[in-house]
Amino acid sequence: MTLFPEMFEPVLSSSIIGKAIENGIINVKLFNIRDYTNDKHKKVDDYTYGGGAGMLMQAQPIYDCHRAILDEIGDTSIRTVYVTPQGSLFKQKTAESLAQTGNIILLCGHYEGIDERVLEEIVTDNISIGDYVLTGGELPAMVMMDCISRLVPGVLSNEESAQTESFDDGLLEYPQYTRPEVWKSKSVPEVLLSGHHANIAKWREEMSLLRTKERRPDLYENYCAKNARNEGEKAQNIDKNT
Amino acid sequence: MTLFPEMFEPVLSSSIIGKAIENGIINVKLFNIRDYTNDKHKKVDDYTYGGGAGMLMQAQPIYDCHRAILDEIGDTSIRTVYVTPQGSLFKQKTAESLAQTGNIILLCGHYEGIDERVLEEIVTDNISIGDYVLTGGELPAMVMMDCISRLVPGVLSNEESAQTESFDDGLLEYPQYTRPEVWKSKSVPEVLLSGHHANIAKWREEMSLLRTKERRPDLYENYCAKNARNEGEKAQNIDKNT
Repeated sequence: MTLFPEMFEPVLSSSIIGKAIENGIINVKLFNIRDYTNDKHKKVDDYTYGGGAGMLMQAQPIYDCHRAILDEIGDTSIRTVYVTPQGSLFKQKTAESLAQTGNIILLCGHYEGIDERVLEEIVTDNISIGDYVLTGGELPAMVMMDCISRLVPGVLSNEESAQTESFDDGLLEYPQYTRPEVWKSKSVPEVLLSGHHANIAKWREEMSLLRTKERRPDLYENYCAKNARNEGEKAQNIDKNT
Repeated sequence: MTLFPEMFEPVLSSSIIGKAIENGIINVKLFNIRDYTNDKHKKVDDYTYGGGAGMLMQAQPIYDCHRAILDEIGDTSIRTVYVTPQGSLFKQKTAESLAQTGNIILLCGHYEGIDERVLEEIVTDNISIGDYVLTGGELPAMVMMDCISRLVPGVLSNEESAQTESFDDGLLEYPQYTRPEVWKSKSVPEVLLSGHHANIAKWREEMSLLRTKERRPDLYENYCAKNARNEGEKAQNIDKNT
């Protein structure tokens, strides 16, 4: 649900999502909220009660658009996600949950936002892609679509899927290298050419830890705390068994 | 810098960014990395040393593309942002900093990522828009462009700019309402119709606090901690002055 369906076209026709639609694995339909306004001038917004800059999207066109979608899908248990900075943070886990729900409606706000009353009526999830201000919900909706689609079985090849899951350990990825072996006097780290799988895995884990500690101390702390808990549980289990 | 410049077109021609480009306030230029490969088959990627799923973008085309941009701009102090989940988190403060730097290069990875050696050579900032996995850096780059552009003087009207700044207090925005006054038996909260500015401001602040506490306990805690510090400093200053 958007006022700017044309913004989505290149994303829907390119890359992973495009291929998944072509193969009939996922289906995306754009609804233009403006098509549902009762206003004879096709107006969809108005001033904010109590004052404030900018225009607010009105309840009626959004509500009627939502009703039309429910009627078309015939699925009333569907989740309706309002894409908004006033939401909980979108993370990989959010995408995993949404990828398992079947149909999803993404509602894109624009201008100053949407009349609260229609949000209370139709929205099941308020989700934000990050703590920054954007012009509208369209780009964040595309971000969510891309992330969620990748998790739908059949969209990625098995090999690609396995790779995605590696994000789940909560660490940033290690540095990667491709041909040529020497570029501008810089060599690929020796261990990666060794063919010694255990050593390569160890090097990559160390690099992941180092990079996470340096660039995302918050993730690093979480990771260490989780590991400490696991070690603690293991120790308790050993105590119980002896 | 991207392998998929066509993905950017609708964003560049619509909304705030489109208007800002038309008015000559900002300027966006797309560089197709593939145009700079020395490979006769226009190949830009290859397998990963040490094993792993997917293809990696090679150093040479990216480096040469970057050199071409530097030559064209004649600005060697330019910041080059690699759009990557292996980066520090993009926040409103990041956008504010980038909006003040003049020219910015955004490097979009695709496939499994980019050879580390060229990143070491050209990248000044590694930035992630959130903790989730996407197909490429194109959508996050558009998110950053939208957010940064809004902060460039002249892109938004004065009124709109003031609104954006309200995000800085670290709280989520209060609920908003527009016409009609009654919709589906739901009335706009009385206080917003009162015309009493102080009461409206107070109600909005309370609603912001309530919503932040409910939906983003992390932001709420930060806000309370910051307020407690400010109160503490005030008290210390009073102590000093008496």
